[in-house]
Amino acid sequence: MNYRFYNARILTMENADIISGEVWVQNERIIYVGDGCDTDAVYDRLHLKSIVWDREIDCEGNLLMPGFKDAHTHSGMTLLRSYADDLPLQDWLTKQIFPIEARMDGEMIYHLTKLAILEYLTSGITAIFDMYLTPDTIAKACVDMGMRCVQVSGMSGQSDFDESLQRTEQCYLKYNGDDPLLSYYIGFHAEYTCSKELLKSVAALAHKYKAPVYTHLAETKSEVEGCIERHGMTPAKLFDSLGIFDYGGGGYHCVYLNDEDMEIFRRRNLSVVTNPGSNTKLASGIAPISDYLTRGINVAIGTDGPASNNCLDMFREMFLVTGLAKLREEDASAVDAWEVLKMATVNGSKAMNLPDTDVLAEGKLADMIMIDLYQPNMQPINNIPKNIVYSGSKQNVKMTMIHGSILYENGRFADRYDVGEIYRKANEIIDSLR
Amino acid sequence: MNYRFYNARILTMENADIISGEVWVQNERIIYVGDGCDTDAVYDRLHLKSIVWDREIDCEGNLLMPGFKDAHTHSGMTLLRSYADDLPLQDWLTKQIFPIEARMDGEMIYHLTKLAILEYLTSGITAIFDMYLTPDTIAKACVDMGMRCVQVSGMSGQSDFDESLQRTEQCYLKYNGDDPLLSYYIGFHAEYTCSKELLKSVAALAHKYKAPVYTHLAETKSEVEGCIERHGMTPAKLFDSLGIFDYGGGGYHCVYLNDEDMEIFRRRNLSVVTNPGSNTKLASGIAPISDYLTRGINVAIGTDGPASNNCLDMFREMFLVTGLAKLREEDASAVDAWEVLKMATVNGSKAMNLPDTDVLAEGKLADMIMIDLYQPNMQPINNIPKNIVYSGSKQNVKMTMIHGSILYENGRFADRYDVGEIYRKANEIIDSLR
Repeated sequence: MNYRFYNARILTMENADIISGEVWVQNERIIYVGDGCDTDAVYDRLHLKSIVWDREIDCEGNLLMPGFKDAHTHSGMTLLRSYADDLPLQDWLTKQIFPIEARMDGEMIYHLTKLAILEYLTSGITAIFDMYLTPDTIAKACVDMGMRCVQVSGMSGQSDFDESLQRTEQCYLKYNGDDPLLSYYIGFHAEYTCSKELLKSVAALAHKYKAPVYTHLAETKSEVEGCIERHGMTPAKLFDSLGIFDYGGGGYHCVYLNDEDMEIFRRRNLSVVTNPGSNTKLASGIAPISDYLTRGINVAIGTDGPASNNCLDMFREMFLVTGLAKLREEDASAVDAWEVLKMATVNGSKAMNLPDTDVLAEGKLADMIMIDLYQPNMQPINNIPKNIVYSGSKQNVKMTMIHGSILYENGRFADRYDVGEIYRKANEIIDSLR
Repeated sequence: MNYRFYNARILTMENADIISGEVWVQNERIIYVGDGCDTDAVYDRLHLKSIVWDREIDCEGNLLMPGFKDAHTHSGMTLLRSYADDLPLQDWLTKQIFPIEARMDGEMIYHLTKLAILEYLTSGITAIFDMYLTPDTIAKACVDMGMRCVQVSGMSGQSDFDESLQRTEQCYLKYNGDDPLLSYYIGFHAEYTCSKELLKSVAALAHKYKAPVYTHLAETKSEVEGCIERHGMTPAKLFDSLGIFDYGGGGYHCVYLNDEDMEIFRRRNLSVVTNPGSNTKLASGIAPISDYLTRGINVAIGTDGPASNNCLDMFREMFLVTGLAKLREEDASAVDAWEVLKMATVNGSKAMNLPDTDVLAEGKLADMIMIDLYQPNMQPINNIPKNIVYSGSKQNVKMTMIHGSILYENGRFADRYDVGEIYRKANEIIDSLR
């Protein structure tokens, strides 16, 4: 499909400028971003006489920008949204979440992932970094729905680790190249669910493929204290000492990194994926985002799963990233809106190894959203990036395009989805597991 | 107009039960809430043979509930949304906000209040507690738009106080009874902008009318410390010692109340209006909401003005109330979703002296919203109140009705509004003041 978007404001995210003009999409790629005046040169460059547009979309002055990247989630946990809340963290996890998860199968996770994808689309999220239980049915859900998905394994000592390791390797080989929407990375659940021997196997696998590794890291104070008791060092230092981060990767949450940990992140070029909604709702704490930025560490944003957030809403997360930093630093100027918008887009692409999705530019993948500026929360138009971060809401997502396909537009999902059936399935599954 | 809403889920907020049935609205009042089976008895009670419905609305299983009450705002500050952010609080106020405000006139505030009202409607807010500069044009904007508005004066030593006092008294007499949408209360800006003499005049006015008094209170640590330096006691104690709270009222923000202050609030039956979005963005701190609830203090929620938030979104505020309490108490069970939902509805009505707007019940005013449960963020339907507080978004507001009029429905504003003109005016005003 060929799309011409015209009469648009455009925030490419290459810089903070907002230009007026057009974006052209041919199949899955952006072939032009500009003021729309020099189109002959574009035709020349593309060796085309003209382009037959499948649709020409008048943006009416609304904003085109790169889609948001949700750099840490567990999509299948839509099942447990509002199922168990307002509980202390350990009770929540061990008494409510784990027992239900033990009874979930791949088909259930297929349907529950589809539900999550609908929600991502309403929030302008065009790629997810998903750690959950059944990679094959997650991959199928994403391909069926058209969602870009970077999966990461969640190996832990709670299941047969040799089998997990084998499956991770299989998935790593299978899903990097199988479908342009999919990729797969090595990951493990967390230090507190993996023995040192298991962690050594993770490092060996990473070395075998010279691959980055991702994990839940320093989410809670007690996790860090427990690791120091068990291993005499912080989780970040432990992982680094075992060679796990020799080829990069990153940590989810990272609420409690100390100076030495941050130095490891800087030296290894690791990404911090912050999850402020989850860290707030589960009372885990406030991550030191200002410190990460000062050190030049790449910070991306994730929603975490819907059991611990409970929604998949990048607008909430963006406000929380800056708001909580301001509270933590007792400084209203901490972590400004532009930094946050970069985290939600460009930095997410970097953390997820999706360099072709970071900005709107010729040759990049068409993972793009349209923000409705003609809603009252975006008016007056004093400063669009600040409006998005401080005032934005799902209500402002006018269109979500992934890989050149429009999947959500003007409050309606693509016709290819049977939305009612997805809702029905989710309710049927929770009823069957209660 | 007579409306029959059928096929609804109904959360009356009288208790946490969700019933299936109907809500009938006749003119500005709710005349029936129930399962829709015993309608003959309703006709009898109303001495009617039947009702001619102007519209019968199939709710398709979506949720009817009382509208949200925004118990502290400065609507006219829409002008300054994203105009000055990421600045230290004092610079923000003195260098950016005050100079522009000094140049705003009543007509500007009329248009800017209309812009804010559009935004309230998108968030299901059906009543506002508004403190701003020109009460007559604010009143006119609210009546013209159909918004329920409780105004409160913002007297301070920064303008001619005698004149302010006189105007407050005039407004108090005029706007309590002038229009069913309007009411007016005595208020002053804050301790740090009022001398002791001025505060004594406020107390005298409150005594004259046996009226409650409202003010910004203990918003920042430095405000409380400054007051102790100036007067040897906290702001709450100072006001109480002067008799300001003898007939009730409340405080906006209340981030830094100590035990003695809380005891004053309990004894005087004062309301705390918490503003977590603003307190976060301006790095003011986290209010001790759990302590207020433990003491039985009425806690309501406000957005504060759009210059300091920057949006008028009750869903953001609700998540922040519980999320920040959880962080503050380091306890994921602190301030549960049901408590928050009461704050946003019933407790707001109490704080704003709007007893007829608190719940959905026969005889109450028809200030009602419909929440779209068939959006992905509300599925599966494990627990509707938790879904609203933890996952809800403006996107879920399917309808907003105030005083029996539907003002926002399915993403569209009432035909009586010229939305484009309201946006145009707001941009014109900021351009003229830059």
